[in-house]
Amino acid sequence: MTEARFDVVGIGNAIVDILAQADDVFLSKHDAPKGTMIWVDENQSEAMYNDVGPAVEASGGSAANTMAGIASFGGKPAFIGKIKDDQLGKTFAHDIRAVGVHFVSQALTEGLATARCIILVTPDAQRTMFTYLGASGSLHADDMDDDLITDSQILYIEGYQWDLPETKKAIISACETAANAGRKVALTLSDPFVVERHRNDLFELVNRYVDIVFANELEITTLFSANSFDEAIEALDGRVDIAALTRGADGAVTVTKDTLVQTPALPQGKIIDTTGAGDLYAAGFLYGYTHGEDLKTCATLGALAAGEVISHMGARPEISLKDLAIKFGH
Amino acid sequence: MTEARFDVVGIGNAIVDILAQADDVFLSKHDAPKGTMIWVDENQSEAMYNDVGPAVEASGGSAANTMAGIASFGGKPAFIGKIKDDQLGKTFAHDIRAVGVHFVSQALTEGLATARCIILVTPDAQRTMFTYLGASGSLHADDMDDDLITDSQILYIEGYQWDLPETKKAIISACETAANAGRKVALTLSDPFVVERHRNDLFELVNRYVDIVFANELEITTLFSANSFDEAIEALDGRVDIAALTRGADGAVTVTKDTLVQTPALPQGKIIDTTGAGDLYAAGFLYGYTHGEDLKTCATLGALAAGEVISHMGARPEISLKDLAIKFGH
Repeated sequence: MTEARFDVVGIGNAIVDILAQADDVFLSKHDAPKGTMIWVDENQSEAMYNDVGPAVEASGGSAANTMAGIASFGGKPAFIGKIKDDQLGKTFAHDIRAVGVHFVSQALTEGLATARCIILVTPDAQRTMFTYLGASGSLHADDMDDDLITDSQILYIEGYQWDLPETKKAIISACETAANAGRKVALTLSDPFVVERHRNDLFELVNRYVDIVFANELEITTLFSANSFDEAIEALDGRVDIAALTRGADGAVTVTKDTLVQTPALPQGKIIDTTGAGDLYAAGFLYGYTHGEDLKTCATLGALAAGEVISHMGARPEISLKDLAIKFGH
Repeated sequence: MTEARFDVVGIGNAIVDILAQADDVFLSKHDAPKGTMIWVDENQSEAMYNDVGPAVEASGGSAANTMAGIASFGGKPAFIGKIKDDQLGKTFAHDIRAVGVHFVSQALTEGLATARCIILVTPDAQRTMFTYLGASGSLHADDMDDDLITDSQILYIEGYQWDLPETKKAIISACETAANAGRKVALTLSDPFVVERHRNDLFELVNRYVDIVFANELEITTLFSANSFDEAIEALDGRVDIAALTRGADGAVTVTKDTLVQTPALPQGKIIDTTGAGDLYAAGFLYGYTHGEDLKTCATLGALAAGEVISHMGARPEISLKDLAIKFGH
């Protein structure tokens, strides 16, 4: 690859997470399918907040978590996302910069507040998310920094953005910029319901721009309307260079046109909260990929990062992933 | 004791904690003696925030943590403290109410922002705190709810408040109200430097109003200008009904005029962050005391609550202390 200032530039929601514990009865009461993400408006977010127990606030956002993970490995990530200049916006900007992610997007000075995501963690360590998008939903064409995209080895985008018509258009143009500069495009499918809602669009995106796709079992089978995981793998059929597919405790499968590499999950201690597992898998994988590692090593770094983040509350690493990788001989 | 609507009413700082990891070099750079609390102004707080790594926000405040702990045991606590109606103020009010603490203090609508405390956790699990007091410093005589104090078995106060002349006066009048209603007064000495700064005042307070004093080894020896812990215990000499003294990993000593009960520390897993250890010790002890338990049981409940809170980041329990107590046969 041509030299680049950044390893990866991520585009995604700039969100602060509000983490609370809840049980299955609470989820049923709120008609929330466990393990998924639900969009809520400001009133619904407020009502949910009033109903949940004591909470902890920590910066989140899927692609933002991935960029924070890449920084923790010692990589050079950048992030494009929209905050307001309010308290939560300051928190988001501080945390992503403090960990070493290049983040210069202009904050809104008026209008919608910084996005927040109420994450309910059930005793089985699963997370169910209620996202109020606020300022983050106003990411438009003007925010796409062509120089940044051109100067990053990989452009990394979220499927979540496909619920936002304007943002989606801006991101497709960012994909065009990356492709013209000879850069790679990576996509995470984000959530099975997102894939269900935008199957045709995402399918076209994958065919046209995406070099590396990240998905879990349910997301990839939904994308191809497949009846099984094996059927989904067959359907991939060289459409992307690499499909990095995760299967929770069963580990991951990395698929290219000619190869299929299976790797185990690497939990680091008791599983407390699965929030950020997919985001950090992508972080480890992309760090490895942009540093010339083979696919098995990329997948192993992904499993280590995911294994760390599920061992505690919150979606960002609590220890240096660089040190963790060294400890495991990488 | 006469029937009361509440077990304990706490008066203290209404603070949101900003928890970040740091090393000893960072503490030296900021001239911060490890394990203590330092007051900072808004600019210093801002500068420190810009200098620390990624952080997590969670409600805190010493007496507030203690009240949250009592609620987690299934007790009936109330809290008096001052927030502003800003984002952090909402966070504080939500968290303390969500856990079941009665909190009705009027929020400021203008002026200083809600208090925050930057807590640096070093790899040895010790915490060093930088408190910007903001709105919390404006707790005055008007905020002392006489009905609430009269209707609580115990009034619980923080030594930290002695740095605030107006608040200190208001709290002394609250002690008077409690004493006149035949209620008990409990005090935590909070911090060795606080004791050093206000030794005479706190000594007088202890002699005049305090029935139960909570302190660690360094705080109690500082109060009595003693040369050793044993000398401090001798100096107690029946000045208070109960001295609940903690010694970190060496457990606790409960002293009355006639008895001295030693109890071990009860860490629940690896020690991650000692923030809130003293606050939660007081929670367990006071829950036991207001529910008619003997001193050894009070101390054991304190040790269990402290043992839980040091097993994770943050100063409030992550699990039900009631369940934990039941698991240990209480």
